[in-house]
Amino acid sequence: MIEDKNQQRTQLNDLGEFGLIDHLTKNFEAKHKSTIKGIGDDAAVIDNVDKQIVVTTDLLVEGVHFDLSYAPLKHLGYKAVIVNLSDVYAMNAEATQITVSIAVSNRFPLEALEELYSGIETASKVYNVDVVGGDTTSSTSGLLISVTAIGEVKSNDVVYRNGAKPNDLLVVTGDLGGAYMGLQVLEREKEVFKVNPNNQPDLDAYTYIMERQLKPEARKDIVKLLKDMEVKPTAMIDISDGLSSEILHICKASKVGCDLYEDKIPLDPQVISTCEEFNLDSTMIALNGGEDYELLMTVSQDDYPKIKANPNLTVIGFMTEENAGANLVTRAETKVPLQAQGWKNFSD
Amino acid sequence: MIEDKNQQRTQLNDLGEFGLIDHLTKNFEAKHKSTIKGIGDDAAVIDNVDKQIVVTTDLLVEGVHFDLSYAPLKHLGYKAVIVNLSDVYAMNAEATQITVSIAVSNRFPLEALEELYSGIETASKVYNVDVVGGDTTSSTSGLLISVTAIGEVKSNDVVYRNGAKPNDLLVVTGDLGGAYMGLQVLEREKEVFKVNPNNQPDLDAYTYIMERQLKPEARKDIVKLLKDMEVKPTAMIDISDGLSSEILHICKASKVGCDLYEDKIPLDPQVISTCEEFNLDSTMIALNGGEDYELLMTVSQDDYPKIKANPNLTVIGFMTEENAGANLVTRAETKVPLQAQGWKNFSD
Repeated sequence: MIEDKNQQRTQLNDLGEFGLIDHLTKNFEAKHKSTIKGIGDDAAVIDNVDKQIVVTTDLLVEGVHFDLSYAPLKHLGYKAVIVNLSDVYAMNAEATQITVSIAVSNRFPLEALEELYSGIETASKVYNVDVVGGDTTSSTSGLLISVTAIGEVKSNDVVYRNGAKPNDLLVVTGDLGGAYMGLQVLEREKEVFKVNPNNQPDLDAYTYIMERQLKPEARKDIVKLLKDMEVKPTAMIDISDGLSSEILHICKASKVGCDLYEDKIPLDPQVISTCEEFNLDSTMIALNGGEDYELLMTVSQDDYPKIKANPNLTVIGFMTEENAGANLVTRAETKVPLQAQGWKNFSD
Repeated sequence: MIEDKNQQRTQLNDLGEFGLIDHLTKNFEAKHKSTIKGIGDDAAVIDNVDKQIVVTTDLLVEGVHFDLSYAPLKHLGYKAVIVNLSDVYAMNAEATQITVSIAVSNRFPLEALEELYSGIETASKVYNVDVVGGDTTSSTSGLLISVTAIGEVKSNDVVYRNGAKPNDLLVVTGDLGGAYMGLQVLEREKEVFKVNPNNQPDLDAYTYIMERQLKPEARKDIVKLLKDMEVKPTAMIDISDGLSSEILHICKASKVGCDLYEDKIPLDPQVISTCEEFNLDSTMIALNGGEDYELLMTVSQDDYPKIKANPNLTVIGFMTEENAGANLVTRAETKVPLQAQGWKNFSD
């Protein structure tokens, strides 16, 4: 929230469309042997020998998905890539290529877009994906980022949402609710800043949850872990809209029910303490907060010995017959039907 | 430009994100056997056995690329697909799948998006591509459409921009300048309409060029024609920014020069007559107008006997050594260096 008055401002008009995309992507090198041709022709050319490809796309819109008053552009570029890679990993696939398109108004100088693209470049390096195409155009207002991610997977390895069976274990990676509580802290600090711009906030108590919001990671490591453990989930989905919504997606697609145990939901201590501070119920936040980009999967009971000791995986319930419905089993041992709220509605 | 005051308006908020995408894509059926999984999971799954895939993406932004005061939403949906397919065909590939994402403000009722998607559906049927994914989100202003197109091609068949050689023939499909002159007519009618909304314009003299602007087609037929004729171009690109700009792309990528003959540039009689009416030079319009979505290719002289009689293909010049530069040979037989303007700058 500190503005450097001396920062360099190069007008986008000075570059033109071709100059801009050349400039922004000049450091991007193809690393995958499947990338036959990247940026610089009418289309990219990819050769995924003997594998199926997966394709997913997401839009991030200023004022809807992010607020530039607290989201640094570098982190935003990183996050725009991560939210798409997360969908690829949720298919049990390896992400290999992305395209990145942006629509941007003239209020952004070139240096701002360089920041954005440096985050995109960092993500592409960390996750080993090639940036193979994209489009830059002007917008009448604000910034919009559209990313398409491509991955590859052997046809026997792909995991859909629709393979869960009754008695399968419901398993989640990492912990939940952090990204949403990070957003609450950032929104509060924004209000404080408006009142007193000289206030220097002490945010040490919130570093983990703020990073979960501003610079999330996608669980590439889990796809490798599952392969190493020789576990193929029966269904998998990434948690972008909240645990509750994602469980219901699997239940609907797989025609099963579910018992989710409240006391098994993994929560970071910072999420619990911040929920107390904001007077929010941490279970509700984990169920509906969204944007955690963890993976939710169902696993056959036969595979329980393989997964039980792994600190990345938490068994939080099991699947039931469809007519039993999708339920939360509370700490008081009552059953409450799960409802899909999704973070967008939740934050209204 | 005629508004139906009784039209139905369903608020987008009533549906929610998942309801909206389900509703808009419910008629979309996968037709390609390579489409293993379309809409409805974290990502689409595609199996292009033994072929390379090509990927391309484009953004269309309201107020920048289209004006809803004269572009019907159905045509806009159609055009958003076509501009991407055109890039796939420019690789000499077959288009097989697309993803479509939209960001839309609440001023659009559901019925407007249904119109848009009916155009997308029509294009996907006419061009035989599967809609396999996408994202819908709200925007703070206006409409934005992001399409990613995927195609397949045998590795020996792919045509890049960089294969042109000196003495190759420069060949273009169809005719040029129509889309730009159609835009001029539409802009003029919009101004007339502002002054007198009851004026009923007689646009019969402009039907071809208006259709070139509002509902362009991509040259899928040319990819098939080239295969049937057993001609593989040495380089190919689609004409989105204007003939001049595209020739320079090929020259730069292939490290060659070019002599383009003014008197060979194919023009429709409606383009010529409308240019006269607007007091514009038709050669300038063909060179810089853009949005024609024809294909520009270079072909070995050895293939001349195969292409010479085909009404879809016009030889407009030939490639030269790089140091000779890219030139227009005028009717007066003087050489003028080609300049890249592109329609965006041109229309400023």
